[in-house]
Amino acid sequence: MEENENLEPENQEILEELSEQGKTEELVEMFEELPTMDVAKFMEQRPVEEVIEYLDKLDPEDQGRIFSDFTYDLQLELFHKLPRRIFAQIFGQMYSDIRADFYQELTKEEQIELLPYLDKKTREDVIILSAYPPETAGGIMTTDFATIFADMTANEALGKIRKDAPSKDMVYYIYVVDHSMVIKGFVTLKDLVLSDPKTKVFEFINEHYVSAEVNEDRESVAQKIDRYDLAAIPVLNSLDQLVGIVSNVEAIDIIQKEATEDIERIMGIIPSEDGEEYLTTPSFAHFKRRVVWLVSLAAVGILSGMIINEYQGVLESFIILAMYMPMMAATGGNTGSQAATVVIRALSLGEMTIKDWPKIIYKETKISLMLSICVAVLTFAKIAFLSFHTTLPDNISLKLIALVISVAIAVQVITSAVIGASLPLIVRKFGGDPAVVASPAITTIVDITGLLIYFSVASATLGI
Amino acid sequence: MEENENLEPENQEILEELSEQGKTEELVEMFEELPTMDVAKFMEQRPVEEVIEYLDKLDPEDQGRIFSDFTYDLQLELFHKLPRRIFAQIFGQMYSDIRADFYQELTKEEQIELLPYLDKKTREDVIILSAYPPETAGGIMTTDFATIFADMTANEALGKIRKDAPSKDMVYYIYVVDHSMVIKGFVTLKDLVLSDPKTKVFEFINEHYVSAEVNEDRESVAQKIDRYDLAAIPVLNSLDQLVGIVSNVEAIDIIQKEATEDIERIMGIIPSEDGEEYLTTPSFAHFKRRVVWLVSLAAVGILSGMIINEYQGVLESFIILAMYMPMMAATGGNTGSQAATVVIRALSLGEMTIKDWPKIIYKETKISLMLSICVAVLTFAKIAFLSFHTTLPDNISLKLIALVISVAIAVQVITSAVIGASLPLIVRKFGGDPAVVASPAITTIVDITGLLIYFSVASATLGI
Repeated sequence: MEENENLEPENQEILEELSEQGKTEELVEMFEELPTMDVAKFMEQRPVEEVIEYLDKLDPEDQGRIFSDFTYDLQLELFHKLPRRIFAQIFGQMYSDIRADFYQELTKEEQIELLPYLDKKTREDVIILSAYPPETAGGIMTTDFATIFADMTANEALGKIRKDAPSKDMVYYIYVVDHSMVIKGFVTLKDLVLSDPKTKVFEFINEHYVSAEVNEDRESVAQKIDRYDLAAIPVLNSLDQLVGIVSNVEAIDIIQKEATEDIERIMGIIPSEDGEEYLTTPSFAHFKRRVVWLVSLAAVGILSGMIINEYQGVLESFIILAMYMPMMAATGGNTGSQAATVVIRALSLGEMTIKDWPKIIYKETKISLMLSICVAVLTFAKIAFLSFHTTLPDNISLKLIALVISVAIAVQVITSAVIGASLPLIVRKFGGDPAVVASPAITTIVDITGLLIYFSVASATLGI
Repeated sequence: MEENENLEPENQEILEELSEQGKTEELVEMFEELPTMDVAKFMEQRPVEEVIEYLDKLDPEDQGRIFSDFTYDLQLELFHKLPRRIFAQIFGQMYSDIRADFYQELTKEEQIELLPYLDKKTREDVIILSAYPPETAGGIMTTDFATIFADMTANEALGKIRKDAPSKDMVYYIYVVDHSMVIKGFVTLKDLVLSDPKTKVFEFINEHYVSAEVNEDRESVAQKIDRYDLAAIPVLNSLDQLVGIVSNVEAIDIIQKEATEDIERIMGIIPSEDGEEYLTTPSFAHFKRRVVWLVSLAAVGILSGMIINEYQGVLESFIILAMYMPMMAATGGNTGSQAATVVIRALSLGEMTIKDWPKIIYKETKISLMLSICVAVLTFAKIAFLSFHTTLPDNISLKLIALVISVAIAVQVITSAVIGASLPLIVRKFGGDPAVVASPAITTIVDITGLLIYFSVASATLGI
């Protein structure tokens, strides 16, 4: 993707100019009008005392929204610098999901310190939301949703939303519940507005809705939102009570994170924590995420050396074999990684399941057969027509050597593709994330199988 | 991500049961109630004649929505089997963005055949939308949006939406335009509903909105939607006229596609076309996407062989050097690919720009220094304590050899990380997609640099 650091640079300029000219009143007015993300980015660059001053001039709702868009570090700094009572007021106006995330990051002592200042509703909300593991629907849902009852008229329903909704950001879908919060269906705000004010809600309710379970994996929730093109999905507990919603704004974040995780895993990097960015992550944290695979593979890689050692004699008589060893290893690694990547991604996107394994292996065999012919022809031509300086035993022609090496490489391409495609399927079969069969792991494995193929083909045909 | 082939299997079962029992009336009723995606998936498994029968029993709006969710193949089959007039009616009710995509896939002849059957509005819409390149905002936008004027009262505005909106799916944001469709701002449906019916729209209009340009890259559009947590973004032409919107449902698709593209590029695979799935893509198409890099790298990889040939003498005296060559190459490849991946992804997500290059190189140097110490210690221990069977010249101890190889590997780790991190930055500098500096390319490059480092360190210190 293209980078785009400052999406609306004009907005930043407007704010900076007003701030330089000391026009605080106009500045605060702009804070209320501009997208909160731009306002948050502007404030993050100012001294914290100035931020406190600005927040003080805003109404609680704007305070809560802008505060929600601050980085965690600034949020924490403000938590420490603001009087508890003032902080509690801003806290009460934050988006409920971001609020729960912030609360979870606090120490137990800080949490206990904050709780008495919160009103009952906020306190309960934050405690309940913080109780769910972050990778579940419960951990990412918000409680900012609107509900109505089926026996209301459209007009009464609108009245209830008018009363409840100022604090709710998501009123595109309105959920119809009974008096114990058991979900009955949903209507869209559009349905409500467009229908005759006297119609009862149950006359136009959608009773067939897609929902998520509170313990459901967040990836599965994001996939449902994606698959069904939803603006939001209701989250239900085991009693079918509506406990929250996940909007597709959240789904976008999850999909970004999961894609990054996939990419990192494929490259043998332990995925970063949510919200960690490259430059702000300490080098030591980067180091820890990379060292495990690197050192393990280096250790396993020594096996390749042992195989070479074993075939020392072959290498000594045919030094030309040593020349094509790196190409053999690299080609196998590349083919295997490509096959693994394509299979991992297709599994991730739900395009296929492990039940399709015979089709996948068949397809990879066909693809790699074509690839192997190309690589083998290239190798043969290269050796037969360019490597004329090598010394060979009398009874062995360069063409024969070229043939032997080409055949070995062709076999290597095919086995690498099949190994690369199979490993993710095997890992998935045993319940793991296919992406952990990282490309470096496959490279290392096919390095070893490649050398075995290379030397056994060579010794069989050259009669060594 | 977890796979999830059938998100709502109960719905499929309900439909199949009704169909088996021949309860067509109830079945059609369910078609109207269930999510269109589930209905489309069900119909796709039935013979096409049956699908035609079902569609015939639905009202045009449901026809259009379900048809929009069909696979392209079924859409095309229906286009050929349905009478043109009937097809035109369904076509008129499709989602405008999907409709334009379908239309673009038709041959010129088919397009010309279809046009006369369309009403003027649909015809113009489809022609205009098809004119934009698919990777731009114009290519992915829909024309299903609602507009109002600033001098209307909230009540009048609701009246206009009621009149216009039945055909518009996206009425969460309502755009305020003047009589030449120049955008003035937006209100949310919620604002409209919650405000006093007599208030004028200009009193609560949001004049500061984030927008996209019609020629803007679709990735940048998706990033804006993500960054600003938007439900939809207005798309403007050069005269600031509102020409369409992109909803965040579309943004999710783009983000998925871009992530897949990133992953494929990183692994040296030419990205697939939109909508291509692993199993349905012919093997030859897979082959073509992988062969280019594979063969090019195999060709370049021969350079490694030439370096080995050059140092043939060194290898002959110290066969132990040959044993650690594959580990050297693999470790360099892994380190370089990891560094490249992390940098490519951080650039993709807009976490940093190429202006940060000194910080990035500095960070990678620090990280790789730590990694190199770990790998070097492992290598030294391995050689010094386990490789006791090797024969060495009299004046050279195993500890010295171990030291030489470890130092070479440490240097290799550091250079690989710096090369891996630099190449994507250089490609971006020259306007390319950093992901094209694929992991296989980096592996090949550091293979070559690695061998040079290895042999030059060895020959310098061992005095060969």
